[in-house]
Formats: sequence, structure tokens, C-alpha cells
Amino acid sequence: MKRVFVDELIEVEEQLVLLKGWIHKIKSFGKFTFVFLRDKTGVVQLVVDDEDMISNLKLEMSVEVEGMLVKNEKAPNSIEIHVRKMKMIGKTYYDLLPFSINQKKVNASLETELDYRYMSLRRPDRRAVFKVQEEIVESFRRYLKEKGFSEIHTPKIIASGTEGGSEMFTVNYFEKRAFLAQSPQFYKQMMVGAGFESVFEIGHAYRAELHNTWRHLNEYVSLDVELGFIEDENELMDLEEGFLKFLFDHLKETCQKELKGYDIELPKIEKIPRIPLSDAQKILLEDYNKKSPTGNIDAEGEVLFSKYIKEKYNSDFVFLTKYPVAKRPMYAMPDDENREMTKSFDLIYKGLEITTGGQRIHDYELLKENIIRFGLKPEDFGFYLDSFKYGMPPHGGFAIGLERLTMKIMNLENIRESTLLPRDMNRIMP
Amino acid sequence: MKRVFVDELIEVEEQLVLLKGWIHKIKSFGKFTFVFLRDKTGVVQLVVDDEDMISNLKLEMSVEVEGMLVKNEKAPNSIEIHVRKMKMIGKTYYDLLPFSINQKKVNASLETELDYRYMSLRRPDRRAVFKVQEEIVESFRRYLKEKGFSEIHTPKIIASGTEGGSEMFTVNYFEKRAFLAQSPQFYKQMMVGAGFESVFEIGHAYRAELHNTWRHLNEYVSLDVELGFIEDENELMDLEEGFLKFLFDHLKETCQKELKGYDIELPKIEKIPRIPLSDAQKILLEDYNKKSPTGNIDAEGEVLFSKYIKEKYNSDFVFLTKYPVAKRPMYAMPDDENREMTKSFDLIYKGLEITTGGQRIHDYELLKENIIRFGLKPEDFGFYLDSFKYGMPPHGGFAIGLERLTMKIMNLENIRESTLLPRDMNRIMP
Repeated sequence: MKRVFVDELIEVEEQLVLLKGWIHKIKSFGKFTFVFLRDKTGVVQLVVDDEDMISNLKLEMSVEVEGMLVKNEKAPNSIEIHVRKMKMIGKTYYDLLPFSINQKKVNASLETELDYRYMSLRRPDRRAVFKVQEEIVESFRRYLKEKGFSEIHTPKIIASGTEGGSEMFTVNYFEKRAFLAQSPQFYKQMMVGAGFESVFEIGHAYRAELHNTWRHLNEYVSLDVELGFIEDENELMDLEEGFLKFLFDHLKETCQKELKGYDIELPKIEKIPRIPLSDAQKILLEDYNKKSPTGNIDAEGEVLFSKYIKEKYNSDFVFLTKYPVAKRPMYAMPDDENREMTKSFDLIYKGLEITTGGQRIHDYELLKENIIRFGLKPEDFGFYLDSFKYGMPPHGGFAIGLERLTMKIMNLENIRESTLLPRDMNRIMP
Repeated sequence: MKRVFVDELIEVEEQLVLLKGWIHKIKSFGKFTFVFLRDKTGVVQLVVDDEDMISNLKLEMSVEVEGMLVKNEKAPNSIEIHVRKMKMIGKTYYDLLPFSINQKKVNASLETELDYRYMSLRRPDRRAVFKVQEEIVESFRRYLKEKGFSEIHTPKIIASGTEGGSEMFTVNYFEKRAFLAQSPQFYKQMMVGAGFESVFEIGHAYRAELHNTWRHLNEYVSLDVELGFIEDENELMDLEEGFLKFLFDHLKETCQKELKGYDIELPKIEKIPRIPLSDAQKILLEDYNKKSPTGNIDAEGEVLFSKYIKEKYNSDFVFLTKYPVAKRPMYAMPDDENREMTKSFDLIYKGLEITTGGQRIHDYELLKENIIRFGLKPEDFGFYLDSFKYGMPPHGGFAIGLERLTMKIMNLENIRESTLLPRDMNRIMP
């Protein structure tokens, strides 16, 4: 007999069916016992009247069940299975579960949940976060592929740092010292110039930052884009705006159940406001009496400014544009009107930065000058700098932190909740 | 004016068009100069009669061109562009190109090509390999998604090794020593048990092997699958067989031009023979007088046996099954009939192993016993072993090396040709 999944039962006639899954809940009522079976698609009620069968059951063991599908209005989803055979196929060896899988509340801290990630994910509500995350990735890929972008995979073991090597993990690579890439920045630019023209990568990025906060990870998934032959940075913001529209439409279609479970109403994307950083700083000072650091706004400023944007433009998103040269990497393209500013931007979503992007310098001489201006040595940027000698076209791009975006969409409090197996200063297990 | 790509010109009427790309070739015939413009989609002939314009041109600079599209039977693809304006948008700073981009032969070694990867990929024939690779990835994902598999991203920074820590790169992780994951093996199993049931991952894997051969990389992309609630390892081979059929159909549809350029005829997948390793060894000895090492066949044996399979079954692929316990990892499921054998397999494609897979042990006690039997310590497998205490279902999976598969499909001689930016014992740049 072919296995049927729980979410398929609704369309199956009354007949003998084969189910597989885990024992989710056991409830006894005298002669009958209701057992709830959970598979990856849902939970269904089993009616068991064989005492031997019942006495061997334990929560979370995995089983194969043969039974009659019966439509019963009193059962959840009006479906129950009258069990004929039940076979244990995955034994349990525990005295006590680390926390509850079948109750509404988890009765454990986030740390305990993460220690037992292989158990917390058995909770459908925890897995829902990763269904949404998977569809974010899917829509990112689909949106860009439809626009002719090529998907690339660039090395994570690299010889030197993008911004000089600070905040990078070192790797012992045979007899040499190497680093884990902070981002695919150099390589995605290089691949634009290498003839792919427009590329994206979905891959790990590593930051050896000494932060241990609700919004930092030391290993995360970066959604990276780079696009050649652009006019200016507005084309990049247009692209990201288009992606966000596509994303939320896609999530509405594919994640209804998951979004409902978290009581999420997705934002509507119209035109996302594009505000120069200096204007944002002025507004913060004048309207909120909030001072900002030179050439940036801090975490509190991001929250306040998002509030302002929501009230004034009814938008959950805002692009901050034209960051000063001194606050951006050496490859950021200077602005045409004011050479102390750059053609760069951040995207703030409900008070949290989820994207950094901008147009890059594509002229070899200008890039070399800028490297020197930043107090760095051109000879330290060997192949990267060399790749600009051969007709590099105007280009730019951006990157979105996958876990951050997931966290904000699902309204979670800690980025570890939207990370399958987080890595931070204290955690490299499981 | 909106940019038109070269491969769209064939469907455009005679009119003024805007093209962007690189100067591919320059050919002078007295008054006229033919300039060939290359973008990511192809090459088109430009007719230029302005001497100033011509005198400024250099191979590989990037330009914007406005011109009249004229249908002319004598031009390549019967299309030429009579240029009105040409603007340089990406300057060149070289005296000599490292090798030729526009000739049939590259006139450089593979090492030089790799040193200048950003230039060699400007050759359409080199980029073709990665178009095929991208479609391999796409079909892997699409095939599994259609079967309900979840895409996951698991950490590459890990606390201990899957098989005890040999051949792993070490990472300096804050004050601790960590490793780069050899494979997502433990995590993909864990995620099956965590309720996802069926998962796949497309991600980097790291091997600190002291090999520097045509078929080894130290960083590669692994196409990983793991499937729960299986009957036995045959279900896994069925799954891989199904994928290969899907893959070759997909490549036929999406990569016609690229395959033609490499003169590739794709294999037809019917039933892939499944031969126990010991039978293969016997055949090698009797038919080819080829001795094999205990419990395995070597590289020469793989080539000879593939030849045998091609002659006897007309198949480019063969599954070798039932490897002995001693030659497989401690998590390999023992065979029902012979406990010294495992429910595992390799897939050989035209003489090269491209997959290792098999059913895994899912019972906690059996796994613990096996760890001890292998001379390892259960306490070293902390969270991995613990995750088997909670009703782990029968499961198994396999992994395909992306670059190896690409290399074999495209009939390349060295795996570095199918790697965007290879990492080996001597190379971490570019």
C-alpha cells in the first residue's frame, strides 16, 4: 500500500490507508484511546481499541499505521483513522522529553530549544518558520532567474579579506593561513565582469564579530545580487523593490497556514521611500530630539525613523541613501554631485537594517586611488584590482540577510529563532 | 531606449536599437570596420564607418551602442548593426590580454586560465560549462521540491568531525577550535528526524585531503539528499535514478546550444544496473584479470567495470551495492542477510564515482554499538547520537559532487574546468 500524507486525507474516500509518522499525543477515554499521529504535513486522530497496541505506545516514537479512514464530524478536520495495524519503526530511549511537543507552550528557554533543535523542530509551529524561510529563498531565486540572472557558487575559503581582514575567521589551510569569506562581494563583482553580467548567490557568510545580540549571527545565509551595465543605484533599489513585491505575493500564495499560525499580516509594497541619510538624521533630530552618530544612524535611530516612515508614508520599509564615503567600503561609487557621498543605500524594515547595497567603482584608476585614500595598499588587492583592467562595466548590487528577513517577517524576537542551527560566540552545537 | 540583448535581435524588426557589451573582435576592410559586440547572450556584428570611433576601440572594453538593426544575409545570423553612437562605459588598462577571448584556441595553460578566471569566463565556451552546471542545480532542486523535499541550510562551522575529525580544515572560532564540515551528513539526518522527513541541501563541503589530482577539490558543492520512512536502500537508488532521468531531460531542453558546442550526446537513463560490489570484483578478476583491494574497487577498476557495464547493459551508469561494514562509515545500516555488509551504494558514471549513499542506522542502541565496534567513543558523538533517542525513523540518502557530475557530463579532463573558482592544495586565489 502506498503511504498517504495527513494533508492528503481530506481528499481521500473512506478506505484502508497507510500512514507514517510520530506519536504526537495520547488521550484515553475508557475503552477507546485517541492517538494523534503527526507527519510533516499535519496531525490526524487515530482511534485504537487494542490494549496491547496502546500499552506499547510512547510519545514521539515513529510508527506505521494501517487503518480505515472514517469521516466523522466530531473529529479534527472531520477525519479519523480506525487503526487495524500499528508497527513501531523508530524506538524511543528517553525518560522525559526535553520540552513539550504537543502543547501550545514550549515550557523551555530558547537556549534549551536550541540545544535540542532536533526536538523543537518537531513542533509544527517551529517548522513553520523554516517553511517561510524556504519560500523566501525560492522567491528570491525565481524572481532573479526570470530576469536572466545566473546563480553562482563562489569560494568561502579565501586568501584575504574584503575590507582588510578584520572580523574574519581564520582557517588553517594546509601550510597557509586563509579566511572565511565575510561576503561574496569581490567574487560577485568579478563574475559580472567575467561576462555573466547579472548574478546571484545564496550562500553562507561569516563574521567574527564580538557581538552576541538578538540580531547577530556569526554564520548566516546571505542573499547576494550583483548587476552589470546599470545606470545608477536607483536601478538596484528598483530591483530590490520588485523582489519584495514578488516575495510577499509568493508568501501569500505558499505560506497561508504558516502566516496565520503566527498571526502575520504581510506588508503591502508600493513605492518604498528613498531618503538621503542626512535628511533622516535631520528629521530624527528635529522631530524626535534624537542625535545620530556622524554618517550613520544607530539602532535606536533606525527604530524611530521606521516609525516616522510608517506614519508619514504608511510603509514598513525605507531606503536610506547617499551614505558618506568614510562610512562605506572603498569600492563604493562616489556620488556625481557630491564626491564625499556614495551611491549606496541601506534598506530598513520595521526598524532593522536588512540590506546594504550600492553602485561600485568600476574604473581601475579610480578604484586604485580610493584604496590608497582609505589608507590601504593596492598590492593587497591583487587579483580583485587586476580584474578591473579589462573593461569592467558600471555595476552594483546588494545583499539581504536571510535570517534577519525571516525574523522580521515572522515577527520573532531573536534571530536564532529563524536559524536552523545558529552559530554565535558561545554556540557551535548542535 | 531599452537595452536589447544579442539573442533577442533575431526577433526584432529593422529599427534603432541599444546594445551593451564588450568589444569581442575588430576586423578592418578599408573604409568599413566590422566590430563584434559580445554580451552574455551572444555576439553580433557592428558596422562602423567613423574613424574616430574606431581608433578609440580596444578589445574587451565595455560599450553602449546605438545603431540601426539591418537584416543582411551575409552577416552572422543575418543581422548587423549600423552604428550611430558608441560610448565607452568600461575602460581597459592592459597592454596584452592574458590569452585570446575571441579565437577558437585559448593559447594558455589551464593554470593561466584559472589565474585569470575573470577573463577566461568571458569566453562563451567557458561560460557554457557553468550554464550547464546551473541547470544541474536547478533540476536537482526542482525534482526534489516536486517530491515534497524541504531545502535546508546547515552550518559549515562545526564542533567535531563526522568520521572522527581527520581530513578536516580547522577554524579558529573565537577561543575554540572548530572544523569546516566535510558534509552535512549528521545535520541532514537530524533534520529528517526533526520532522522535515525529507530534505536536501546544496552547499559547500570541505575536504582537507592531501590529493592534488584531476578529480579532487578541497572545497566543492555537494548536492545532498536525505529521506525518512524508507523501506530500504533501493528506494534511494530509485530516487537517484529518477533524478538522473529528470536531469537529462531538463538539460536537453535548457542547454541545447551549450551541449552542441561541446559535442555532447546525453546518456539515456533506463534501469541503472545494481551490482553487488563482490560480484563486480569477481567480474573484474575473471574478465579483465584485474585484482581489487579488499572491500572496494580502485580508480582503474571503476573505469574497467564501467566499460563492462556499457558493453553488457548499454548503460553509462552503474550502482555498486553492498559495501562491507569495514569500508563504510559507522552509521551505515548493516544488510539484513549478511551483517558484515551494508545497505550502501556508490554510483559510477563513465568510470568515475559521483555518488555515495545508503540507508543509515536509525536505532540508538545499534548506532552506539556500531560506534564502539569502530573503535570510536559514543561520548564524542554527543548531540548526534542523542538525536536518535526520540523515535528516529528508518532513513537514508546520498550526495552528488556537483563539479564531478558537471565534468563528466561535459566530458572535461579536469575538475577545475567545472569549478568557478577552484580551491586545491596550491590554489586559494583568485
